[in-house]
Amino acid sequence: MRGPVPTLRDVAERAGVSPTTVSRVINASGFVSREARAAIRQAIDELGYVPSASARGLASRHTAMVGLCLPVVDADTDLADRSDRRPPPRVPGLPGAETVPVVVDTDPEAIISWGGMYFGEVVRGAEFAAWEAGLAITVAMTRAPDLEARVLNMAGRVDGMVVVSGTLPDDLLEHVARRVPVVILTGLGPESAHDRVTVRNAEGVERLVEHLLTDHGITSLEYVAAPEGTPDDEERFRGFCRALTRAGIEAPAAPRLRGDWERGRGREIARGLVDGLGRGGTLPGALVCCNDNTALGLLDVFAAHGVRVPEDVVVTGFDGVEAARTSAPPLTTVEQPMAELGRAAVEVLTARIAAPARRAATTSLPVTVVLRGSCGAHPPVGVDGRAGEDPA
Amino acid sequence: MRGPVPTLRDVAERAGVSPTTVSRVINASGFVSREARAAIRQAIDELGYVPSASARGLASRHTAMVGLCLPVVDADTDLADRSDRRPPPRVPGLPGAETVPVVVDTDPEAIISWGGMYFGEVVRGAEFAAWEAGLAITVAMTRAPDLEARVLNMAGRVDGMVVVSGTLPDDLLEHVARRVPVVILTGLGPESAHDRVTVRNAEGVERLVEHLLTDHGITSLEYVAAPEGTPDDEERFRGFCRALTRAGIEAPAAPRLRGDWERGRGREIARGLVDGLGRGGTLPGALVCCNDNTALGLLDVFAAHGVRVPEDVVVTGFDGVEAARTSAPPLTTVEQPMAELGRAAVEVLTARIAAPARRAATTSLPVTVVLRGSCGAHPPVGVDGRAGEDPA
Repeated sequence: MRGPVPTLRDVAERAGVSPTTVSRVINASGFVSREARAAIRQAIDELGYVPSASARGLASRHTAMVGLCLPVVDADTDLADRSDRRPPPRVPGLPGAETVPVVVDTDPEAIISWGGMYFGEVVRGAEFAAWEAGLAITVAMTRAPDLEARVLNMAGRVDGMVVVSGTLPDDLLEHVARRVPVVILTGLGPESAHDRVTVRNAEGVERLVEHLLTDHGITSLEYVAAPEGTPDDEERFRGFCRALTRAGIEAPAAPRLRGDWERGRGREIARGLVDGLGRGGTLPGALVCCNDNTALGLLDVFAAHGVRVPEDVVVTGFDGVEAARTSAPPLTTVEQPMAELGRAAVEVLTARIAAPARRAATTSLPVTVVLRGSCGAHPPVGVDGRAGEDPA
Repeated sequence: MRGPVPTLRDVAERAGVSPTTVSRVINASGFVSREARAAIRQAIDELGYVPSASARGLASRHTAMVGLCLPVVDADTDLADRSDRRPPPRVPGLPGAETVPVVVDTDPEAIISWGGMYFGEVVRGAEFAAWEAGLAITVAMTRAPDLEARVLNMAGRVDGMVVVSGTLPDDLLEHVARRVPVVILTGLGPESAHDRVTVRNAEGVERLVEHLLTDHGITSLEYVAAPEGTPDDEERFRGFCRALTRAGIEAPAAPRLRGDWERGRGREIARGLVDGLGRGGTLPGALVCCNDNTALGLLDVFAAHGVRVPEDVVVTGFDGVEAARTSAPPLTTVEQPMAELGRAAVEVLTARIAAPARRAATTSLPVTVVLRGSCGAHPPVGVDGRAGEDPA
């Protein structure tokens, strides 16, 4: 398909100039006559020459690339275990439509969420900020096999890294940070030696719970937590407790219900609550979930068992994923600026690359409480909100 | 925060060995005694040394990185125009929850979809395949300003590129392809000189329409297309027509309704249809949409105006985005293996890098017709599907 890769020397030869002159044009440094410049551009075009970033990286000691370390999310199992895929992965040629399988949905556990689109949005925002700064971006999920080699490889080819909190062991993180600037994305930690970008987890949940207490008069609330030791979740639980305490309601010492951020586990929790009802138990007035996926799992099972939301129990989430807009009922949630998180992280990183000696700082992005049907009807009273708009 | 970046020479000095010996350990080539190896590993660790990918790239002439060129999607405007964001983007310190805005949802045009999660999934699959092959991956959206410089920069630092169909001008694509292998993702084109990975667009829609004709007895169907000249959409329309023709129904020469892949435009189309009803018009039996977002837009407006789906009109999509599972009613669609597309593209690319002389080929991934409420009730009759599972 292609000939040998053309070199700078090939360009010089075809343009009838010296390699140094070609180098000047490529690096936009030093004087080159208009004629020579035109000849070089033509030669570059004819040969399909592309300057090697490796060579330029060595010369300038800047890679003009930043890295983004993402957590491995649940849905990865769909890729890891190929035998589990329904149809064979490749079809040679194009046989007729009769071979297309038709299935009645839905296998409820088959949801591919990639963190409920969260990390897709983070990548989108990070890529945008990198583009604005004239940088390329490389992404990696932090899978256990080869994690160290992979992360060090990334560190070796970038000017700085954004690392999602909790994805790297501490010693590996510190090893990397000795080489390139690091920005931690989400998670708590004012004690950290690194820049950090997070959202106002506690304040968001506090404000949401305040709304449930004040505007809906709900007094019995349960927090549905994530696995223990997750900083974002701990922050959200702290906001939950703070709102209760301020309203004179005793806050629990620890969450009584715990999911794992995923919809499937949300369903299990709801099944447990529905079973409890059968044994004479009761539901709290509201289930305040650590994230949208967990809350959507609750909605799935409540709907299937005739538990009415919000009449029998209010359910709320956190994140603002798209599926939360179209669920039945639509989910009241705390909306994170997901793409802005990725963008801010890369902006903080480029600022840090430019000023390595500056003190590390935490940037907290604002959140928004978004009221929908899962917490009740909403005449715009007592809130500073606009009314919902008729999609028609 | 950090000292000067340690070099290979620093490692050699601290370990008491020659730079060549360190280089052998780093590149896993040549004999090094166990003692020297241990001393070098310790020195690497203590210094936080990371081998420079630039240096290794030059030495080996391989970058061990692949690139992924993605289209710019609609939602990018949310990042481009920062003045449009609700709250100020950064909050210094952590003021109380009272500053968190509470709004009643929803601004229906504010949906951030990033292609309905499509490209988030493609990135996820591509990253997985790169990881399996021991490669890093860099991603870029193909924004118009600086597009050429940016793409050539990517070409200069990768061993190959996956390019989403239609994102690069032909001459730029060919220029890049002279330098590195290129795989085109989606879109039609058996005439192409490049490897291509796509899905069975025509067969998927053909099979779906066959289901509507045969199992639901619908005879009046309209295709809701994407903008003219989009290969994937043209393929889907071809499948639509083929199913009609085979059933003895005259197929239209061109789509009568045209959206733009986005939910907002789907709403506009539905408003037009509803207005038509007010003037004595009728709805077709089924609206077969080019993608899920368009179909979801139709559902939004039909629900608001009392047009019942599927009783008054059947609506179907294409893609299999998550929001299509939770819409009211859930959306019958043709499910694309989105993550598998990204994965297959990178696999084809690595095969091409390994065998540059092989003939270019098209890989077509299978699709699945997934039946949900938007086309009617589904006793598993006449289809090879499993029954839907109760989420309880």
